Amino acid sequence: MDYTRFLPAAVQAALRFDPPGAWIPELPPGCIRLSAGYPAAELVPAQQMVQATANLVNSEYDLPFHYAGSPAAMALPNLILQRLMERQIQAAADNLLITAGSCQALDLVAHALIDGTTTVAVEGPTYMEALEIFHNYTDRVVSYPVDGEGLQVDAFEEDLIRRRAGNQPIPGLLYTIPSFQNPTGTTVSLDRRRRLLDLAQEYDFLILEDDAYGELSFAKPPIPLKAMDDSGRVIHLGSLSKVVAPGLRIGWIVASPKLVEAFSWFKKDLGHPVTEGAVAKYLESEPLSARVLTLREAYRKRRDHMLQALRRYMPDRVSWRTPDGGFFIWLEVENADTKALLPRSLATGVAYVPGTYFYHEPGQGANALRLSFSHVDFQSMEKGVELLAGLL
Amino acid sequence: MDYTRFLPAAVQAALRFDPPGAWIPELPPGCIRLSAGYPAAELVPAQQMVQATANLVNSEYDLPFHYAGSPAAMALPNLILQRLMERQIQAAADNLLITAGSCQALDLVAHALIDGTTTVAVEGPTYMEALEIFHNYTDRVVSYPVDGEGLQVDAFEEDLIRRRAGNQPIPGLLYTIPSFQNPTGTTVSLDRRRRLLDLAQEYDFLILEDDAYGELSFAKPPIPLKAMDDSGRVIHLGSLSKVVAPGLRIGWIVASPKLVEAFSWFKKDLGHPVTEGAVAKYLESEPLSARVLTLREAYRKRRDHMLQALRRYMPDRVSWRTPDGGFFIWLEVENADTKALLPRSLATGVAYVPGTYFYHEPGQGANALRLSFSHVDFQSMEKGVELLAGLL
Repeated sequence: MDYTRFLPAAVQAALRFDPPGAWIPELPPGCIRLSAGYPAAELVPAQQMVQATANLVNSEYDLPFHYAGSPAAMALPNLILQRLMERQIQAAADNLLITAGSCQALDLVAHALIDGTTTVAVEGPTYMEALEIFHNYTDRVVSYPVDGEGLQVDAFEEDLIRRRAGNQPIPGLLYTIPSFQNPTGTTVSLDRRRRLLDLAQEYDFLILEDDAYGELSFAKPPIPLKAMDDSGRVIHLGSLSKVVAPGLRIGWIVASPKLVEAFSWFKKDLGHPVTEGAVAKYLESEPLSARVLTLREAYRKRRDHMLQALRRYMPDRVSWRTPDGGFFIWLEVENADTKALLPRSLATGVAYVPGTYFYHEPGQGANALRLSFSHVDFQSMEKGVELLAGLL
Repeated sequence: MDYTRFLPAAVQAALRFDPPGAWIPELPPGCIRLSAGYPAAELVPAQQMVQATANLVNSEYDLPFHYAGSPAAMALPNLILQRLMERQIQAAADNLLITAGSCQALDLVAHALIDGTTTVAVEGPTYMEALEIFHNYTDRVVSYPVDGEGLQVDAFEEDLIRRRAGNQPIPGLLYTIPSFQNPTGTTVSLDRRRRLLDLAQEYDFLILEDDAYGELSFAKPPIPLKAMDDSGRVIHLGSLSKVVAPGLRIGWIVASPKLVEAFSWFKKDLGHPVTEGAVAKYLESEPLSARVLTLREAYRKRRDHMLQALRRYMPDRVSWRTPDGGFFIWLEVENADTKALLPRSLATGVAYVPGTYFYHEPGQGANALRLSFSHVDFQSMEKGVELLAGLL
């Protein structure tokens, strides 16, 4: 039976893009995963989460196992609001929506703000899963280049001027990862942050700030766009995926109450009471403020180790920038096709993510690739870089 | 700032309906929750889930805390497929999508199959959260009455004939809860099930079978529609919410691979690796096949207890049917307005869900209400029924 006639036009349009997770290849056993944006194994509080789950059940019995009403789960928003305040983001309960990681947050924002008529502005390159989600709602995505200071605001503004002059659609939403961007590791400078907020006001768009890596700074922590937002135009996405563990699926949206209301319409009761309760118990015993200090130090060492290996092994045709935080280093390779090279790299024993997956526009990023220094151990990291260097 | 201009037309249309959870009032402390479709406290395996989480971490360390790749989480689909097979539903891995409870399952199906041009057929009354979700995608909902044998297939067919004759839109999807329906507790008879499948073929629509309560039979278990589906027109939704615990948020969709692919497009990586892994560990130690036998016995006793209390206390103007499974009894009260009565009932100390929330059409169900015998203890159940009877 052909089911196509049951699929609305917008769904058929979405299905024309790559399937979700097309950028994750099947890995041969023992392959070194420089592809994985996962936390380091030793930094995942696995036993602590077991303890937190036990504490939750000892204090609340069956309560967290129902749909709602667990005191611990209800405490989670306050724990997050407190951490946001420490980062200069003033938010109240009606500004916050807990989500199943950044992924649900992105989906809810897209669901409430994007249809086939909306133009979405993104960084090029940008987070491939965000592109996947936007593609579920629109094919009108336009990307703007990134340099050492993050999104090139000049290029963005020039295009806005051109669009206004030519009566072309102005983006309704700018998606940016201003701090330690996935995949380039770059950070939008303070001056550019101010200009983005001014442009949002002048051209009447909203800014979707994905702050998944903002806590993981190796030098002075950047100020979130949301902390500088006087106009209510910034929608801020946060997540425990990088600072606690992705498998818990805890993220959040901070926005104006009217927007939070719209997002919650599509979230319905898609919370996770048990996990939310257990995570709250865990955070009460190990506050984020203390935890991030440990993480920053650990991931800085990992970055340094990868940079050292890159300097040692990579040929001259490969270049990169030093990220000041986050999980990633972005390599650019003269005259390379990193997607075509991947099968050979996997066979050799090292995985990376080809650059093309981080672009909306086909063919862009063909000479680039993303490496993660976050997950594999030091020895594998060095070995992986050496193997990859041999191929390049 | 007015954000309305950023919301697509379909989103603005969705926001015109009641907010999610409008049917859950704020309860005064100590109020007896005959409203809650929750499992019984003593039937929630809370300590077992702590143990399962510990087992998971002891065998897999940090693995389940990443995005994917935990062997336990990957074992969950097989555990579910095995149970489906025991219930005569033949399904393979590519027929199954694990979801965050029935709620995400409903949302994914709605997302992939419904836009503002789709007509959705539902039972009247039906599950209020399903209505909420459908309203997020379309306002073209049409409901058909339910009697002691479930959905009145005659009335449904008559309307289909009329629609075809009048060139009116035929529903693209029929949403039904054929076994121990929420809220009426009724079950669609075998003959009507066969006729529904024939009608789907004749009028070219899909059937969305919500089987949340199908396992909880107090007599002979009904055959799922999906087990009778030769044409690939049935999308089957299952859930651990009633048979293990709702707070875990584990559900699933069984459908043709092409449809599962479309649903997975919108699910993205919105799984819960930790919970899925822990639940798989739990189910390995306590298989569903054994567990449901205990649950059937326990909930049958609870149903009997509520029926006894209803017979003892309720005045003649109140009538109900005996459900053969599930969690609910549906009361009809001559000349009552159960929504208007609710504040007084809450003040008296007993909560129920007014009938109107189970209907798409405003005003319908005003004289009805839903009681749950699943959650509160026997003594509170009797007291709650007595208090409510006093009000009626």
